[in-house]
Amino acid sequence: MAKSSEVQALGYAARDTSGFMSPFTFSRRATGDDDVRVKILYCGICHTDLHRTKNQWGDAIYPMVPGHEITGVVAEVGGKVQNFKIGDRVGVGCMVGSCLSCVECDSNLENYCANRILTYNNTYYDGTNTYGGYSDHIVVKEHFVVRIPDNLPLDVAAPLLCAGITVYSAMKFFGLDKAGLHLGVVGLGGHGHMCVKFAKAFGAKVTVISSSTDKKTDAIDRFGADAFIYSEDANQMEAATNTMDGVIDVSSKARSLQPYVVMLKTHGKLISLGSPSSSNSLPIVNNLIGGRKTVAGSTIGGLKETQEVIDFAAQHNITADIELIAMDYVNTAIERMENVDIRYRFVIDVGNTLSLTN
Amino acid sequence: MAKSSEVQALGYAARDTSGFMSPFTFSRRATGDDDVRVKILYCGICHTDLHRTKNQWGDAIYPMVPGHEITGVVAEVGGKVQNFKIGDRVGVGCMVGSCLSCVECDSNLENYCANRILTYNNTYYDGTNTYGGYSDHIVVKEHFVVRIPDNLPLDVAAPLLCAGITVYSAMKFFGLDKAGLHLGVVGLGGHGHMCVKFAKAFGAKVTVISSSTDKKTDAIDRFGADAFIYSEDANQMEAATNTMDGVIDVSSKARSLQPYVVMLKTHGKLISLGSPSSSNSLPIVNNLIGGRKTVAGSTIGGLKETQEVIDFAAQHNITADIELIAMDYVNTAIERMENVDIRYRFVIDVGNTLSLTN
Repeated sequence: MAKSSEVQALGYAARDTSGFMSPFTFSRRATGDDDVRVKILYCGICHTDLHRTKNQWGDAIYPMVPGHEITGVVAEVGGKVQNFKIGDRVGVGCMVGSCLSCVECDSNLENYCANRILTYNNTYYDGTNTYGGYSDHIVVKEHFVVRIPDNLPLDVAAPLLCAGITVYSAMKFFGLDKAGLHLGVVGLGGHGHMCVKFAKAFGAKVTVISSSTDKKTDAIDRFGADAFIYSEDANQMEAATNTMDGVIDVSSKARSLQPYVVMLKTHGKLISLGSPSSSNSLPIVNNLIGGRKTVAGSTIGGLKETQEVIDFAAQHNITADIELIAMDYVNTAIERMENVDIRYRFVIDVGNTLSLTN
Repeated sequence: MAKSSEVQALGYAARDTSGFMSPFTFSRRATGDDDVRVKILYCGICHTDLHRTKNQWGDAIYPMVPGHEITGVVAEVGGKVQNFKIGDRVGVGCMVGSCLSCVECDSNLENYCANRILTYNNTYYDGTNTYGGYSDHIVVKEHFVVRIPDNLPLDVAAPLLCAGITVYSAMKFFGLDKAGLHLGVVGLGGHGHMCVKFAKAFGAKVTVISSSTDKKTDAIDRFGADAFIYSEDANQMEAATNTMDGVIDVSSKARSLQPYVVMLKTHGKLISLGSPSSSNSLPIVNNLIGGRKTVAGSTIGGLKETQEVIDFAAQHNITADIELIAMDYVNTAIERMENVDIRYRFVIDVGNTLSLTN
């Protein structure tokens, strides 16, 4: 039973490496002075949730309530909260804590703070496990809450909190946000389709590179990509040699990155955002030297930039293409995700479908 | 026999994949309107010369006269030459031609021009093979000649034309030229010792990482490095985890780059400058993602920057530590280089020791 100061919460949790999720009651801490309590309405299903619930990264803490693409409304605020009031439309992404005093935090890069605390599958300052957005509410330090503008529906906005900020931050930091660039996007899934949308908003020419030929129509007609390459066709791949300023690789398949390096023009950049459970490889570093090419990685973004991407999305009408599902569909959804049967993001209708009787 | 308009030249050439070099007479073109004829006094021996004379990169053109770290004096100038006169102290580096009209050339990056012409083992516009600096003179378009300030002795300045510009350009472009950074330098050879000197001139803290423990004294006492890591000692390597802003890898040994990625702080950059004959590998791209880390390559520099590095070197008294050798010692020198028995650059005393009777 929860302590008197805590509040009972209901979620869906994985209990072991099968990853199977079922209803789980737990308690959230009392809303502290700097805290915001968010009534969760929607939560996106990120590929990370699949990796983590099945312990593919080897660091699972069970029971695990996943979910880090959270949108909802403010239900309660602590006495010292400055920027939010009850009823505000808000989001919570991949982090609920960081030291706020290191050089990274001081640079608005809480995502690179060595002591950042992830929204789930992590240990909070008080020693409790963090539980994510597959649950009815969450208590979060104000600093880690962002505002969702009124014109962004909360369901299609949820994936901005991870998929959106991840691709946006990488493109901004590595200078791939300039009009007129030719960008390749490897993998047209949750992150990939957002990447295409942002790249088009930045004014890039976009080529989608995918191992599913049947995504060509969506890539071009639905998301506005300029071209499509079927990655299993060596001729198509080779024809792209030396044509791209940047390639953003959001695929989480382990494979060689060499074919994408070859596509880069001189000074081109390959940015890896996917996290395969096994290793990618880059066999020929020599190919970087001749063209002053870069291979780099990036992960999510800081809180300031997360607010920035949401405001940018609101301004440019960028939202995720989602399949809205009920909470009790989550295990099927994860299975379909594993079979690449999703266009393009599952979002759980937490507010309307989460109950103990599910 | 040379055509009447051409001038006979004498050099040392490799004739086959043994790489063995012996005297070779050939002809240089007549000095054209835009050309400078340089009487070669010194030529550095670059690791590239070893790779190429033995056809380790698979593209050898024999007979091959190597050498792309050339210093000497102007012996003749064409009618339209603007910037040089007879007697000027000059240098010629890795390139003797480029298209001068592409976006790279327009950006003073002739080194990334798709049609650049290398100083040796390449085909010139007139269809002839290019022959390098292991020879008594060379005819070069004015654009590809740089000026050596009076206070730089021509023998110790020669390695600036390849080793110097390579490390300087990479540090400048990737922002590793800022005071206060902690830089690792992998490999203390021809490029490595120049890299340490430039890094110290930029105001960096420098750690040399080497597989030869006996280089520790030189690294610290002779070149001013702040620390030394013996790369075969796993404890020393591990202790460097997450400590460096950049690692400049000038080693030409093929190996995994993973240990150096681990040494990088968040946002750190590993810059590969060596060109192993087989492939380096970077097995774990995931390690880039968590710290927004970069792995990149770079090769030499454009002509404007080559003049810049020479002027910077003159200003900061940066020269190579060389072993001056006679022309007929070149085969032994290459062999010693292969056995890592060189501190730190062989430079051939071409002016005083090259003759047919050698």
